Amino acid sequence: MGSTVLSELGTEIVIPICAVIGIVFSLAQWFLVSRVKVTPERNPSSSGPNSNKNGYNDYLIEEEEGLNDHNVVLKCAEIQNAISEGSTSFLFTMYQYVGVFMVAFAILIFVFLGSVEGFSTKSKACTYDKEKTCKPALATALFSTVSFVLGAVTSVLSGFLGMKIATYANARTTLEARKGVGKAFIVAFRSGAVMGFLLAANGLLVLYITINLFRLYYGDDWEGLFEAITGYGLGGSSMALFGRVGGGIYTKAADVGADLVGKVERNIPEDDPRNPAVIADNVGDNVGDIAGMGSDLFGSYAEASCAALVVASISSFGITHDFTAMSYPLLISSTGILVCLITTLFATDFFEIKAVNEIEPALKKQLIISTVLMTVAIAIVSWIALPTSFTIFNFGTQKVVKNWQLFLCVGVGLWAGLIIGFVTEYYTSNAYSPVQDVADSCRTGAATNVIFGLALGYKSVIIPIFAIAVSIFVSFSFAAMYGIAVAALGMLSTIATGLAIDAYGPISDNAGGIAEMAGMSHRIRERTDALDAAGNTTAAIGKGFAIGSAALVSLALFGAFVSRAGVSTVDVLTPKVFIGLLVGAMLPYWFSAMTMKSVGSAALKMVEEVRRQFNTIPGLMEGTAKPDYATCVKISTDASIKEMIPPGCLVMLTPLIVGTLFGVETLSGVLAGSLVSGVQIAISASNTGGAWDNAKKYIEAGASEHARSLGPKGSDPHKAAVIGDTIGDPLKDTSGPSLNILIKLMAVESLVFAPFFATHGGLLFKIF
Amino acid sequence: MGSTVLSELGTEIVIPICAVIGIVFSLAQWFLVSRVKVTPERNPSSSGPNSNKNGYNDYLIEEEEGLNDHNVVLKCAEIQNAISEGSTSFLFTMYQYVGVFMVAFAILIFVFLGSVEGFSTKSKACTYDKEKTCKPALATALFSTVSFVLGAVTSVLSGFLGMKIATYANARTTLEARKGVGKAFIVAFRSGAVMGFLLAANGLLVLYITINLFRLYYGDDWEGLFEAITGYGLGGSSMALFGRVGGGIYTKAADVGADLVGKVERNIPEDDPRNPAVIADNVGDNVGDIAGMGSDLFGSYAEASCAALVVASISSFGITHDFTAMSYPLLISSTGILVCLITTLFATDFFEIKAVNEIEPALKKQLIISTVLMTVAIAIVSWIALPTSFTIFNFGTQKVVKNWQLFLCVGVGLWAGLIIGFVTEYYTSNAYSPVQDVADSCRTGAATNVIFGLALGYKSVIIPIFAIAVSIFVSFSFAAMYGIAVAALGMLSTIATGLAIDAYGPISDNAGGIAEMAGMSHRIRERTDALDAAGNTTAAIGKGFAIGSAALVSLALFGAFVSRAGVSTVDVLTPKVFIGLLVGAMLPYWFSAMTMKSVGSAALKMVEEVRRQFNTIPGLMEGTAKPDYATCVKISTDASIKEMIPPGCLVMLTPLIVGTLFGVETLSGVLAGSLVSGVQIAISASNTGGAWDNAKKYIEAGASEHARSLGPKGSDPHKAAVIGDTIGDPLKDTSGPSLNILIKLMAVESLVFAPFFATHGGLLFKIF
Repeated sequence: MGSTVLSELGTEIVIPICAVIGIVFSLAQWFLVSRVKVTPERNPSSSGPNSNKNGYNDYLIEEEEGLNDHNVVLKCAEIQNAISEGSTSFLFTMYQYVGVFMVAFAILIFVFLGSVEGFSTKSKACTYDKEKTCKPALATALFSTVSFVLGAVTSVLSGFLGMKIATYANARTTLEARKGVGKAFIVAFRSGAVMGFLLAANGLLVLYITINLFRLYYGDDWEGLFEAITGYGLGGSSMALFGRVGGGIYTKAADVGADLVGKVERNIPEDDPRNPAVIADNVGDNVGDIAGMGSDLFGSYAEASCAALVVASISSFGITHDFTAMSYPLLISSTGILVCLITTLFATDFFEIKAVNEIEPALKKQLIISTVLMTVAIAIVSWIALPTSFTIFNFGTQKVVKNWQLFLCVGVGLWAGLIIGFVTEYYTSNAYSPVQDVADSCRTGAATNVIFGLALGYKSVIIPIFAIAVSIFVSFSFAAMYGIAVAALGMLSTIATGLAIDAYGPISDNAGGIAEMAGMSHRIRERTDALDAAGNTTAAIGKGFAIGSAALVSLALFGAFVSRAGVSTVDVLTPKVFIGLLVGAMLPYWFSAMTMKSVGSAALKMVEEVRRQFNTIPGLMEGTAKPDYATCVKISTDASIKEMIPPGCLVMLTPLIVGTLFGVETLSGVLAGSLVSGVQIAISASNTGGAWDNAKKYIEAGASEHARSLGPKGSDPHKAAVIGDTIGDPLKDTSGPSLNILIKLMAVESLVFAPFFATHGGLLFKIF
Repeated sequence: MGSTVLSELGTEIVIPICAVIGIVFSLAQWFLVSRVKVTPERNPSSSGPNSNKNGYNDYLIEEEEGLNDHNVVLKCAEIQNAISEGSTSFLFTMYQYVGVFMVAFAILIFVFLGSVEGFSTKSKACTYDKEKTCKPALATALFSTVSFVLGAVTSVLSGFLGMKIATYANARTTLEARKGVGKAFIVAFRSGAVMGFLLAANGLLVLYITINLFRLYYGDDWEGLFEAITGYGLGGSSMALFGRVGGGIYTKAADVGADLVGKVERNIPEDDPRNPAVIADNVGDNVGDIAGMGSDLFGSYAEASCAALVVASISSFGITHDFTAMSYPLLISSTGILVCLITTLFATDFFEIKAVNEIEPALKKQLIISTVLMTVAIAIVSWIALPTSFTIFNFGTQKVVKNWQLFLCVGVGLWAGLIIGFVTEYYTSNAYSPVQDVADSCRTGAATNVIFGLALGYKSVIIPIFAIAVSIFVSFSFAAMYGIAVAALGMLSTIATGLAIDAYGPISDNAGGIAEMAGMSHRIRERTDALDAAGNTTAAIGKGFAIGSAALVSLALFGAFVSRAGVSTVDVLTPKVFIGLLVGAMLPYWFSAMTMKSVGSAALKMVEEVRRQFNTIPGLMEGTAKPDYATCVKISTDASIKEMIPPGCLVMLTPLIVGTLFGVETLSGVLAGSLVSGVQIAISASNTGGAWDNAKKYIEAGASEHARSLGPKGSDPHKAAVIGDTIGDPLKDTSGPSLNILIKLMAVESLVFAPFFATHGGLLFKIF
């Protein structure tokens, strides 16, 4: 089978070094962002347009304005503080509940997995290599529990740090917008990069350290070692579930509530400080779109790695104990960090944005550059870290694979991601005809707007599904489930860049909100709006990536689950599997019904509160009295904590119930069904929502003859567009993106509990 | 294996007799309806409230009004004529296009199937019983083509006759409404029954005759005989596709167009004669909801029968040439006609409706009575028509089945249908909290209405899917794919009653339209509105049945396809199958995107025309000038003909392309994927649409304190409800119900072409 060019020692050095580089780079970006001050100068009179204390004084700045107004700076700092406090407080409240869940679930994992061999502490023959001795199931139970907790903590940390940097950067972006759109873009993008690199590097490092620590106990029993590691993916993803659902409900309850009264009834602008829900709305962006998404993508990344590792451990890499080849997934992620580092410099250092219409191309260029560079990196890694030929476990048999085939597997995933990104952009950016058609349909009212928007979302599913199908076919044919797992890793290999451009969106959104609330000039608001419009598209692209990778990840996990549960075929032509498939395909609907209704109900409460304040606080509408922001924050917090429990239970309990009562075949059906059905709803929901949002922005911006004929703000078509935008909110930010987690989490949970289901599962059929 | 109680001669007598009874009963109902005259009396002055010329003179009639106004009768006749002419003209135009398709596809079937053995005319060894000699593939090609044409013609005829009776009954219902709601109900229901019985009996009779004629050639080669019969299902379903899609686009383009200008912009009532699109709207009810649905359910019925027969032909019934047992599916349908006949008398003769609130319970009672009686009938048929023990083909092996097990298979399908019906009623009737909650959400505007409505639709999927899953599990476990097929037949066994209560809805809708247009009193309109509101719920129930049976039918067809293509496992863990599953799950989205966009575009054209007429025809708004109805009819006709082609091609070409290029495994995946995903969208779309419609009616009717707090007509919540209703139109009447046909048609087409795909399919994999 041959050996690898890169030695084991080399691997042991390369991975942590790349992770550390990522963390250092991220801190450097943070430092650069921190040079924008949000405290007024000590001696206000000495500060001027060319003051060098705000940094970047070596550029010629043409469009500066309002730099002298220190009240604005103070005001920005105050708002930033409120948003940051609200976000922190919400996350801490959520983490308390989630912590309880984590402890309970950790115990569950230990008990269920420990019971597989009746809590015996004796070593046993390995499952796949009967010649060898493996550690007892009790050890797997213990280490799975530990890695579960580690995954959960890392996920929470990723989300929390992301939120921190975002709330740190939002006001800084606003202040930089005074100097021009390019400066503001750089601050927002750098902050996104902090999050992206921190998350990617952190995830890699923790996983790497965990593997090495576990090896101290497991030694040569890699089968057990990597089985235990799967807990890391489960931990990461289960936290992501609560982050996405809780955060999603929070942000959209506030957003919908604020818009329904503010924009529709009172006719005041978005983010107007008179609107009592405005702080809650801005907090929502940070806890939902930033912390939630960070946890989500971290989960995908952790799961894809775990799926690849667990399959590899029973393939020739694991059998021959080839650590470098075994670490192939980690090496891909490591080089990904370096590639993204170079890519980031193209956005922040090599070029500078000078005009509004350069923002979207700059972000698009990030995607292209990172993909092209990464292709080269994958080729190198595949060449140095893999033997030229090896075998991969394929449901009971071993399949011979060449290293170039594995390169193609990773590559096809990577490029499929790019295609999904571009298709998403086409369907959600108002530069193209689909969104313009939706905007045009607003002429005949909200109903046609909704009909066209839904149709657009449905249509936008076609190409991404073909892209995913091709990736699956290629990688599956070449390297079975291992191929799928590395294809998913390929799509996620540029995660740092993906997260950077994704996090950039909500930061810009917040920046716009702060500009409005701080009473900054119309021109500043226009600049942040331009950043935000591009952010809407990139958010949709980010969601596209998240869904595409979730599809591949779930399939890889599904494959790992099936392998581990000892199933060799999942035959649709058996009743057990088919009913699983049918019910599985229904779960995303059940889940969406819950999350959408939650947003609806929470928004209704918010509307009542906002109306109450407008009606009972004298002088609020005139701007002479301050609204009670805190009550609105509390409504969102309470609603999201309360409402995240039922959908959370649905996702967490389904695999346990199905596996225990109906057994692994039905569970396989459920996983496959929820995967193929959930992907479609998730993509269509995200794109429909994104399109409605940008159709509204298209009318508001009035950048073309056509757009102006639909406007201005307040016209009937604009009102219809606002209705569409509001409907799209829960679709694109709550139910749609949560579905990724539904499909991934059920798969990883099944994988972790596979030995239990294989031993004790299918109770119902055993009884009858 | 034992023999059956019922002799072959007995079977040969029972089936045609039941079919003839159904046809006679249907004609009798027609005769009773025809006794309501829509021509004024010869001597108008002799007619009075107690005139016996309108029939039913032996009842005490308390609420009669307007019976003397002969102008009203003339007006009604005139409107009825316009609707009937519009419907006939549209259907004939459509049939011309469909006819071209039919000829082309018939040739395709002949060429593809003939090529399986290179157009050889030699007999060959049978596929499943190598000892025997079977007819050549060329014969199967020829007879499949013939049965395809027969199925297509029967489907067209079913739809056309349904439309004829509906347009014959609408004005009669209006006129009877002058005498009270009970009388009007009886006319509408009887007319529905005409359609139901005609269709059920006709479908059975044609199938029975075809089988017997084909036997003259095939003799003992039942394998070939019933393979050829599958063309009947394909013919029926392909016509249904065009009927549902074309009719669906027609009806909703007219409806949405009429509402957007009439109700929203001009603030005139629904069906106001001043609205130029009003005739097109009423025509639409007849071509979409009546003709389309008739073809659809006929298709399901034909396909379920074909699927059962083709599996039975390679089971012990076929091998031992037991004609009675072989005819079990036909015997179920035959007794179904008798059961429905008795059930109908409960609605029209045994009891009489006296008040508005008795309508819905009366219709619900129909469902319950028919289900209970049918259970007994199935038990009897299973006892007399089946040997006590026999074997059923189960993907390569033969499975032993007892007659009581088959009884349970049919029964579980039947009762699952009832459960689906009740759940649908719960989610779409405004008597229960789900619709009331949706109505309540209109307080905060159209956006929350849409969010709540979508969530309701998603939620309404849960129980029906569990009901279908249980049916599948039970029938699959007992009798493999034959069990599924007879479960589907069980659900469809009460088709005559199902169709009667389903067709009743659009007839009442039309009756209301005619009352409005003929300028009849408010009180008459209220009576027809009450009939119509119940009709909305029954329409949703009918759609629930259609979807539930479609799911079972498609699975049965899928099983028959797999059996015939010689596949014994469809393993999700192979790339060929999995990508099929994923792409298959995407197809319903693609299809829905097309149909919804078609409705949207056609509605936009309609809106422009209606606006143009209001703006350019002087005196139109004042009622002094007549609108140009014909142009609106033409817009709907042209749009629906043009727009039905792309979705039609998608459905018809997918199995051909996938089967030819990728082979039977991938095609199996596509069928399973589109089935499990399509069912969910179809149910949720229908129920969301139905709920929005009834939420609006709930506010308009103002029957409770809560409802009145949301109204009256024209209030902001009511306006929001109208927007929801308009969005729901294409969901519930175009894209939702068309999806049934998508999943069924792809399955039956695959079944017909199975020998071709098995021989020549998978070109792409053969090349590479």
